[in-house]
Amino acid sequence: MTECVDCAFCAPLTDAERDQIFQALLEIVGPRGLVTAPDEIAAASLDSRRRRQGSALALVRAASTEEVSAVVRLAGEWGLCIVPQCGNTSTVGGATPEPESPANRRTIILSLSRMNRILSVDPVNAAMTVEAGVILAKAAEAAREAGYLYPISLAAEGTAEIGGTLAANAGGVHVVRYGMARRSCLGIEVVLADGRVVNLMRSVRKDNTGYDLRDLFIGSEGTLGIITKAVLDLSALPAGRLTVWAPLGSLEAVEKLFQTVEKFAGPALTAFELMSEASLDFVYAEGRTSPTTAKSDWTVLFDLALTGRDDPDNMTEGLIEALEPLFDSGDVLDAVLAKNEDEAQALWQLREEIPTAVRSSGGNIKNDISVPRGSLCRFIRETFAEFEEKTPWLAPAVFGHYGDGNLHFNLGNRPELGKGFWKQHEREVHRMVNDAVIRFGGSVAAEHGVGAKAALLERTKDPVELELMKTIRAALDPKGILNPGRVVRWPDNVWRNPAEAWD
Amino acid sequence: MTECVDCAFCAPLTDAERDQIFQALLEIVGPRGLVTAPDEIAAASLDSRRRRQGSALALVRAASTEEVSAVVRLAGEWGLCIVPQCGNTSTVGGATPEPESPANRRTIILSLSRMNRILSVDPVNAAMTVEAGVILAKAAEAAREAGYLYPISLAAEGTAEIGGTLAANAGGVHVVRYGMARRSCLGIEVVLADGRVVNLMRSVRKDNTGYDLRDLFIGSEGTLGIITKAVLDLSALPAGRLTVWAPLGSLEAVEKLFQTVEKFAGPALTAFELMSEASLDFVYAEGRTSPTTAKSDWTVLFDLALTGRDDPDNMTEGLIEALEPLFDSGDVLDAVLAKNEDEAQALWQLREEIPTAVRSSGGNIKNDISVPRGSLCRFIRETFAEFEEKTPWLAPAVFGHYGDGNLHFNLGNRPELGKGFWKQHEREVHRMVNDAVIRFGGSVAAEHGVGAKAALLERTKDPVELELMKTIRAALDPKGILNPGRVVRWPDNVWRNPAEAWD
Repeated sequence: MTECVDCAFCAPLTDAERDQIFQALLEIVGPRGLVTAPDEIAAASLDSRRRRQGSALALVRAASTEEVSAVVRLAGEWGLCIVPQCGNTSTVGGATPEPESPANRRTIILSLSRMNRILSVDPVNAAMTVEAGVILAKAAEAAREAGYLYPISLAAEGTAEIGGTLAANAGGVHVVRYGMARRSCLGIEVVLADGRVVNLMRSVRKDNTGYDLRDLFIGSEGTLGIITKAVLDLSALPAGRLTVWAPLGSLEAVEKLFQTVEKFAGPALTAFELMSEASLDFVYAEGRTSPTTAKSDWTVLFDLALTGRDDPDNMTEGLIEALEPLFDSGDVLDAVLAKNEDEAQALWQLREEIPTAVRSSGGNIKNDISVPRGSLCRFIRETFAEFEEKTPWLAPAVFGHYGDGNLHFNLGNRPELGKGFWKQHEREVHRMVNDAVIRFGGSVAAEHGVGAKAALLERTKDPVELELMKTIRAALDPKGILNPGRVVRWPDNVWRNPAEAWD
Repeated sequence: MTECVDCAFCAPLTDAERDQIFQALLEIVGPRGLVTAPDEIAAASLDSRRRRQGSALALVRAASTEEVSAVVRLAGEWGLCIVPQCGNTSTVGGATPEPESPANRRTIILSLSRMNRILSVDPVNAAMTVEAGVILAKAAEAAREAGYLYPISLAAEGTAEIGGTLAANAGGVHVVRYGMARRSCLGIEVVLADGRVVNLMRSVRKDNTGYDLRDLFIGSEGTLGIITKAVLDLSALPAGRLTVWAPLGSLEAVEKLFQTVEKFAGPALTAFELMSEASLDFVYAEGRTSPTTAKSDWTVLFDLALTGRDDPDNMTEGLIEALEPLFDSGDVLDAVLAKNEDEAQALWQLREEIPTAVRSSGGNIKNDISVPRGSLCRFIRETFAEFEEKTPWLAPAVFGHYGDGNLHFNLGNRPELGKGFWKQHEREVHRMVNDAVIRFGGSVAAEHGVGAKAALLERTKDPVELELMKTIRAALDPKGILNPGRVVRWPDNVWRNPAEAWD
């Protein structure tokens, strides 16, 4: 993948050196913390989408901040690179080492999964302090038990860990109301590239004592430091929800519907998903039934959160009244309202089953993009027209978080071409989509992060911004040992002539 | 204030050099943009609290990003320092140059007030693009005209400018719901210390393409770059509000009241202010009347925003029912509900008049601090006890944003000592308060920023965090020309033996 250039990190280790390193690691993390069995290292070196098999010298499982710090110091002394891993649910290779090559002979995977304690919950401050390895769903459960909501909710929540979701600034379906993971985090503890520990574990909501280092580390995917602890910001727990399935008269009607619902509900609007019929057809083909008889190319699914003051019947009545003009104009064809939580979950299941249904039908080319909400319909129209013209074999199955302008802009092939035909054209289709995203002022990595797609940023970013990212990476990790090659490829002498496999 | 050390920036300019600089500036900004009259420079060198008179070589008023960039480049060539100014409403000297001394002979003030255009409003994306010099109140008005809310609201909104509020990450009374200025900003354009322009003007809500540079510049008070444009994130405009004045049975009752109201209202809770009777007494002494006959040491004022679906009468009824247990337990003594917007404004006026009423009675020592909400009552009790013991002459007049844990922890003197007695003890009282804040894990600069209080950070910050701030400042502004001495004092050779006047 990468062409290796002479540098300290690439010199092969002798067996004696390797043994010395293992001995030193053992002294830091103990026998439970050092994994050298090739099959276990290989398992930890495979990304969650099983598309990228890396390799590493060892898997180190630290149990405390002190251990993380000591391992990082050791890495500096020996010229080892570190791939931090916390849940290993990155879909973009953000937690996966490079494959076997001279460049990664000295790479170790540093897992934080053993750091899995919930340290405290402060109900008056609505804050929870956790170690990085706490599983997302467990953190959410602990918040609920304290009467609060930790609002980050995503498909991998059963295995994703807080440190990883913060490193990747994870999103999910509730971003329209609660923002990404960054917004629900008050403080973090970070181990720097030289092993120093920086304590940013503040739990206040107003703090202007200097630069926003917290948000610099959050979303840096382990390239600027390793997040070892966090103070999470908890939100008020809704008393229930009103879930609505609304087939649209046209794609463009989504704008009117969103504005109407937002005006009606304000911050009670906690999710607003747009799904193409083509994406839902995969779910229906698996035996699920559409909740409506209305025929539509586009459907919206949205949630309104109920607070203590809301009467569900009143709210339903008010909502129907607010939607009336949209029924009259034909913008909304139907509105299926869940009468209880079971029905709400059944509606959401249709949305959530899209990815698995698509996978079993042969998969497709995945683009994790966003464009400003005001241009989103035009973006869809124009790209679809471009596909018609240039790649008529494409079969789009687009869905996503309209409220955030974030689409899973996924593109398979027409069934007559056979399962997986798209695989031969993945790269050119990515490029076509990403070029359109840039034209529309959007983001080519909206929700899942950059990971191994550094070449994509090099092609699409404002050059000054990219230089600035390198400047900051160089200032914080002058030896370039943290998660090498991810997000922004630096130092230039190591990452000369880089591959563009993920473009 | 500062001891000057030999460096390029301190060498005195000859008259010929000065003329050459003025000529070059004139070519960039034209005659309207260059101000050299001593009285105008002096006016621009005075901070908004009129406590700090700086001095400068010239006041340069740029009309475009290109002009800002060219001025910064020129500064680099001539070894000039730049104090960016955008509204000049900093209360901590963040926009004010150093006083006359060898160290600032080469300082120019760079004002962005002429860059005052609202460039576009996108109602579908709920975003607004503005130049840095747009006045906060005008931006808010333009948002309202488009049917949206720009939620940053603060005392200086009639003169504060967007670039300045972003540079300082301003707060205000609605932070409990909408966060600080950082949260309502989607993108920015920044001129770097070497004159390069970095375009971070994205208007998407989900973007994980690399490091969060936007939030690094926001809140850096002009020390890392100069914000020249911004894309503001607009929120749904409330349909009205329910305003409540509630005297408490005890300080600690504020916790129960907050949790009860938050559970009832969820995100409809848009402001939650705590005021000591001592602070309100200054307002009553000016002739205002208390809205209640209940006698209490502490009073809460809160707002609930109404959305399209809310019936004000239903909401009021529901709120009273929710508060019932707190009336029964004596935690809340009364609840004065504003029956209309006029009454709501009258209640808020009492809160907003506290600072001016205090000023006319002799002023006091101002501390802009926050502690985690869960420790706030204990913080007040313990510091008040410390005052009783060590400084019994102090008369606290504390009020602030309980929802954010942010208090204006202001301390005057008992009237028998005469107006302004506190002035002799300002420094020791600041130190006592700030030490307590640190003990409680709080912030010594919660809302107004650091500005000239860099020495305070040096005394109270985690040393690793402080080093990291210097590392980043050094990486982004290697010559140290942007807003010298503010936030974090660097380079060390220039800021050796710094004064601690603002500690």
